[in-house]
Amino acid sequence: MNTVKIIIKKRNNIPLSQKEIEYIIKGAVEHTIPDYQLSAFLMAAFINGLNDDETFFITNAMLKSGQTLVLSNIQSIKADKHSTGGVADTTTLILSPAVASLGVPVIKMSGRGLGFSGGTIDKLLSIPGFKTDITVSDALNLAQKSNIVIMGQTKDIVPADKILYSLRDVTGTVESIPLIVSSIVSKKIATNSDVIIYDVKCGSGAFMKDINSARSLSEKLISISKKFGKRAAAIISSMEQPLGNNIGNSLEVIEAIEILKGNYLSSDLYNLVRVLGGVTLFCCQKATDIQSGSEMIDNAIKSGYALEKFIEFISQQGGNTDIINDYSLLPQSKYKKEFLANETGYISKLDAQTIGMASVETGAGRKQKDDYIDFGAGIIINSRIGDYVKKGDIIATIYSSSQQKLNSAYNEFISAVEINRNKPPKQKLVIDVIV
Amino acid sequence: MNTVKIIIKKRNNIPLSQKEIEYIIKGAVEHTIPDYQLSAFLMAAFINGLNDDETFFITNAMLKSGQTLVLSNIQSIKADKHSTGGVADTTTLILSPAVASLGVPVIKMSGRGLGFSGGTIDKLLSIPGFKTDITVSDALNLAQKSNIVIMGQTKDIVPADKILYSLRDVTGTVESIPLIVSSIVSKKIATNSDVIIYDVKCGSGAFMKDINSARSLSEKLISISKKFGKRAAAIISSMEQPLGNNIGNSLEVIEAIEILKGNYLSSDLYNLVRVLGGVTLFCCQKATDIQSGSEMIDNAIKSGYALEKFIEFISQQGGNTDIINDYSLLPQSKYKKEFLANETGYISKLDAQTIGMASVETGAGRKQKDDYIDFGAGIIINSRIGDYVKKGDIIATIYSSSQQKLNSAYNEFISAVEINRNKPPKQKLVIDVIV
Repeated sequence: MNTVKIIIKKRNNIPLSQKEIEYIIKGAVEHTIPDYQLSAFLMAAFINGLNDDETFFITNAMLKSGQTLVLSNIQSIKADKHSTGGVADTTTLILSPAVASLGVPVIKMSGRGLGFSGGTIDKLLSIPGFKTDITVSDALNLAQKSNIVIMGQTKDIVPADKILYSLRDVTGTVESIPLIVSSIVSKKIATNSDVIIYDVKCGSGAFMKDINSARSLSEKLISISKKFGKRAAAIISSMEQPLGNNIGNSLEVIEAIEILKGNYLSSDLYNLVRVLGGVTLFCCQKATDIQSGSEMIDNAIKSGYALEKFIEFISQQGGNTDIINDYSLLPQSKYKKEFLANETGYISKLDAQTIGMASVETGAGRKQKDDYIDFGAGIIINSRIGDYVKKGDIIATIYSSSQQKLNSAYNEFISAVEINRNKPPKQKLVIDVIV
Repeated sequence: MNTVKIIIKKRNNIPLSQKEIEYIIKGAVEHTIPDYQLSAFLMAAFINGLNDDETFFITNAMLKSGQTLVLSNIQSIKADKHSTGGVADTTTLILSPAVASLGVPVIKMSGRGLGFSGGTIDKLLSIPGFKTDITVSDALNLAQKSNIVIMGQTKDIVPADKILYSLRDVTGTVESIPLIVSSIVSKKIATNSDVIIYDVKCGSGAFMKDINSARSLSEKLISISKKFGKRAAAIISSMEQPLGNNIGNSLEVIEAIEILKGNYLSSDLYNLVRVLGGVTLFCCQKATDIQSGSEMIDNAIKSGYALEKFIEFISQQGGNTDIINDYSLLPQSKYKKEFLANETGYISKLDAQTIGMASVETGAGRKQKDDYIDFGAGIIINSRIGDYVKKGDIIATIYSSSQQKLNSAYNEFISAVEINRNKPPKQKLVIDVIV
């Protein structure tokens, strides 16, 4: 095997063999192939693409670069959900306990926030005492006991992804569908659930800006997952505006608890949870179709079983369960500033990406990978696109522990909002379901 | 300026501005852009190409990365010739003194051998006492005195080329026409002659394997040189078989001297010198057309003026001029081995690349950049493609200072030769002349 010959083959748009791709990934992980050769390979793969076989080979090679969870002790059909990343996407905190309360084990490995996208792990860490750095064997015990565990990513699972992703990030090779697929699917296969539901975000606040690329990504995520013997489905959902009203770690935990308590059930956030849950239960053979699966989710919420499961989950992972009834126990920010409508009319834009970046400015996210997080910081938005507002109405409230950050978040936020005399067309939340 | 944004622009096949390209080249030379970003850029440029403007910008940025020669003291129209690299290509050693003897100053900066291609500097260094590491001011003095100087590449001229070339070599991004053009033309412009003649080799022993790519390269070399205000022309010549009969450093010096003495004037080597010389003299306005320029070269050889100029040149750069009449003063190899025809018939193949690699095996070239060169080693071939040979005839004699290298060169040489019952079609030496 010769690295340059493999690079040239991909450069000339000739499909690579499984052995050639394994050689590259092994070389990346063992540091026998230098970064400048890996980045030339990644650029050739980006421009010329990888076919389905190559995408499977690279996903498999990445998977094999580390450990996988052995879930054979847990008999039931296990489910996992992955979001491609968005703003105010708190679905995991609602969906996981709801599904687990219905008898479907959820063993999730979640990530930290990345850029303007929040991360489930950061949100959970805002709960006093909550632990996400738990060992694999502890995680399996918890899952057997309660059907639910959410852990942080360990460095033993798909180490190749960390190496390739950090290189892609600085060499302009991020937005490649086959490379995104290999990064996502390898980690999902490593945690070894039977059913994988992909929530592919589409719109200004997502990697996939248009429906065609979102659909291509969805189809590839499903087809590669199936090659590993998994049941997989994808929901394409809008990320033009933030999904929930709350952006920021403890703020999103509060919004999730409110929904688990049966409030705000007509919100976009809950509506997406219903669809994701319906598809999950259908794929896990717990429901005969998606609609009846969604109704099972409604029942889990309305009966209080989902909230009970959430409390069990918090408790099991060391979190203070008093937060459920006393939000003041969650981190709170010292300063706040209201953002008022500067004219009367319909809200025509609430740009998700800009709002996500404003939230990072408050301290709720990281600009650099080791930044400290202000768990109480963030933004609460009172309106949705299409809402009628009067000049002076409070559109959003921005929270931060630093007056300076508050101001810079406010300044960032300004360009996210547009108010128009004409009512904008209704936004479609769930754009497509591919089962 | 942001390196990743520039890489992404090229990746998306959007032409780069002059400032963006200058930023990349400056970053390469000043080591502010890491290799892994440069190689991603080079791969994107390789696959998506560079248009004429971008090729000019990168050539100009590379040129500006170092010093240029100031030749304003030399009034006459100065000529330079560049070969894209071949086997037994000794034209420089014959053409330069011939042209200089006709009043055209030749100030050349030449390279060392690269892979299976020989290098003029290595050939000259086989002459006892000959010096090629001369300062720019000494070179200008010599040129003013005798119209001819050949110096080795200094690290102050186009330092960007060394950085980019060594990276291209290990990242599968060598054979890109715009990148090749920028590497060649930047160095030619730096030495600042008025007329540049490109000898673009085509065939198995050349970078350009087919006529279409050789023609594309020729046209780009000419058009980019013209953007720098130079008169430029290209000759596309065959490199299916070695150009001369002798391969190896002192062996090629001997062949050049023989031709300068008026011997072997019907050889392919001399025929190419005639055409290159004719085009040079025409472009320098010393001849009314190419044909009469070639006749002037004939006269320079037959009159002995070219040989006289060669002797002056050797003497000026410290070489022992007694070699002209006593070849035993040149380095000689201890061992030799004859390669015999294994059947009777017409020679149908004398593969230039394989013979070049066999010559490297003898010790005449380098496998790694700091390898010691055996100046006396090499191969003398007695036949050309189309020649009729009888079984047992000596096709070639291989020379080396090491018995082991001799054997490995012999083994490499075997696959270079094919003998066939049918006479092969006549090879065309000069495929095209683009003036």
